[in-house]
Amino acid sequence: MIENPFYTDAVHQDFELISIGRLELEDGGVIPDLTLAVRTWGTLNEAKDNTILIPTWYSGTHQIWADAYVGEGHALDPSRYFIVCVNQIGNGLSTSPHNTTDESISMSRFPQVRIGDDVVAQEILLREHFGVETLALVVGGSMGAQQTYEWAVRFPHMVQRAAPIAGTAKNTPHDFLFTETLNEQIWSDPGWNGGEYTSNTEVVDGLRRHAHLWATMGFSTEFWKQEKWAALGFDSKEAFLEGFLEPYFTAMDPNDLLAMAWKWQRGDVSRHTDGDLAAALGRITAKMFVMPISEDMFFPVRDCAAEQALVPGSELRVIEDVHGHLGLFAVDPGFVPQVDAALAELLDTRVSR
Amino acid sequence: MIENPFYTDAVHQDFELISIGRLELEDGGVIPDLTLAVRTWGTLNEAKDNTILIPTWYSGTHQIWADAYVGEGHALDPSRYFIVCVNQIGNGLSTSPHNTTDESISMSRFPQVRIGDDVVAQEILLREHFGVETLALVVGGSMGAQQTYEWAVRFPHMVQRAAPIAGTAKNTPHDFLFTETLNEQIWSDPGWNGGEYTSNTEVVDGLRRHAHLWATMGFSTEFWKQEKWAALGFDSKEAFLEGFLEPYFTAMDPNDLLAMAWKWQRGDVSRHTDGDLAAALGRITAKMFVMPISEDMFFPVRDCAAEQALVPGSELRVIEDVHGHLGLFAVDPGFVPQVDAALAELLDTRVSR
Repeated sequence: MIENPFYTDAVHQDFELISIGRLELEDGGVIPDLTLAVRTWGTLNEAKDNTILIPTWYSGTHQIWADAYVGEGHALDPSRYFIVCVNQIGNGLSTSPHNTTDESISMSRFPQVRIGDDVVAQEILLREHFGVETLALVVGGSMGAQQTYEWAVRFPHMVQRAAPIAGTAKNTPHDFLFTETLNEQIWSDPGWNGGEYTSNTEVVDGLRRHAHLWATMGFSTEFWKQEKWAALGFDSKEAFLEGFLEPYFTAMDPNDLLAMAWKWQRGDVSRHTDGDLAAALGRITAKMFVMPISEDMFFPVRDCAAEQALVPGSELRVIEDVHGHLGLFAVDPGFVPQVDAALAELLDTRVSR
Repeated sequence: MIENPFYTDAVHQDFELISIGRLELEDGGVIPDLTLAVRTWGTLNEAKDNTILIPTWYSGTHQIWADAYVGEGHALDPSRYFIVCVNQIGNGLSTSPHNTTDESISMSRFPQVRIGDDVVAQEILLREHFGVETLALVVGGSMGAQQTYEWAVRFPHMVQRAAPIAGTAKNTPHDFLFTETLNEQIWSDPGWNGGEYTSNTEVVDGLRRHAHLWATMGFSTEFWKQEKWAALGFDSKEAFLEGFLEPYFTAMDPNDLLAMAWKWQRGDVSRHTDGDLAAALGRITAKMFVMPISEDMFFPVRDCAAEQALVPGSELRVIEDVHGHLGLFAVDPGFVPQVDAALAELLDTRVSR
């Protein structure tokens, strides 16, 4: 276990740690006592049908949802919905390589976790801890979108509506390779030491390079050309790197990022259907809005639209944002209103079961 | 000086080494005896107006032009034109960090060279060595496009036609950052040793990571999705990386790549006009076809079209290719025919001076 101030209440507020016990993983490993970090808003109604589930993205936690997406005036409104944001396994708040006290799975010994393992764990959490067996909506961005698709395919009877934002049901080969270049920045830092460093600060060079890759693929060419960083209070692109992306990623734990990356690279709902993506997506009964971001460099609209075409009754709702994939940070004032409009419409859609 | 088998006749055929003497550089450095590696085809006519100049791209040499673009049946036809391909300074064949015997500029002591320095050197070469003062066409891809723009702005009276392919007149901030991530792969390899390695093989890990970044930005998302590598004889994306991109870049010299990258990052014709890009491009009198590649991830059509709109009388000719930027390798059978068609039309365009 490593102390890391990023993964504390000072940065991440108002979450509970809930144990769901032993989880056997798809790839053969075991997490003997899985603790999920959970943030909730609002109250479960008597009919137990007003729950919205939010799974988190790579490097993300519940905090960005608290800061930008959830609240009165948003579609994700705690006065109407019981909103549950579950931090993904390995994200540094839920059980992760750096924070587990179980030596059998700490650091370099952390087992391989898949998107499906997260969804199985979330289902146990919702049913056993909250008594929830129906989801009014599952919504997530990026790796959260992967989990959203997995929910809709794996537990179709539970999911009434679903909104995968800026992510895919089956990870693309380009994304696999991009993610691998992120990993290589960490692996190539001598301080990483095969995953057995004593502080994330020993891997700061690798984490900084990792941040720089996000600069060129996470934001769009047009973000940089239009100098959108200026609106965020920076006076040069270099200052933006040093003041925004570098501190964001260098604060994190390298093994946690690697655990999430392994999962991201292998997200694929067609594992349920012997590789037949159309068959997997054809299982979906949720009303689905597929919501790519217009300038996303690595989850391009084209890839998302191709999957959307395979989901019965689904609709494509493109979010316009020159920020690209990291538009998910909700830094453009136009971003969240688009998300809200789509989610409000989706939530108002009657579903018959 | 370092021996590197990649930069020899075994790999690069039929070039001459031509000294143009001392070159004082824009940024204050000096190359005491600049040798340019030059490949020519065809014969200069009596009017001395049938010369086509080809500057080279990052990591590239004259060889790709010999292999894919120049020859009978192509627009770049040696039976009609005197074609001169000049390897850029620092590319490993012309004077470069790894190959100079001048200790004052070898390896980490190599001076900073700009696109303008290359163009000045090429003008001296053409005039003094070949007696050429008029160019029927300047054509180049990527960094060759940067040099093409520089030619058209710096020496407008000499350039009758110009075709920048997959490149820009002013490097974009996104491209600067992307190039920096390429550099970081080299800098972060302990074997690089501040530029004072004794063999490029000591930097093979960094060069391999560098190759992987080209995989995700040099090719397009669609290249990977459509598994275009299969048509090149590979049976997986991993085999393609190991058999194509990795050997290509790991054969090269790290300092040479860094010298070219520094130049690429700072290419900007508006240096002639106090930063006014419209004024610089407004100087161009050459008939210009601006030729971006449809799926280019880092020289997107949008960026090229914006510059084209500033060049008097120019035309935009988009090359359709899902390979993206590295379509320049001419691996898609549809690529060179599109280049040929555009260049043939351009060469047939009457120009009045």
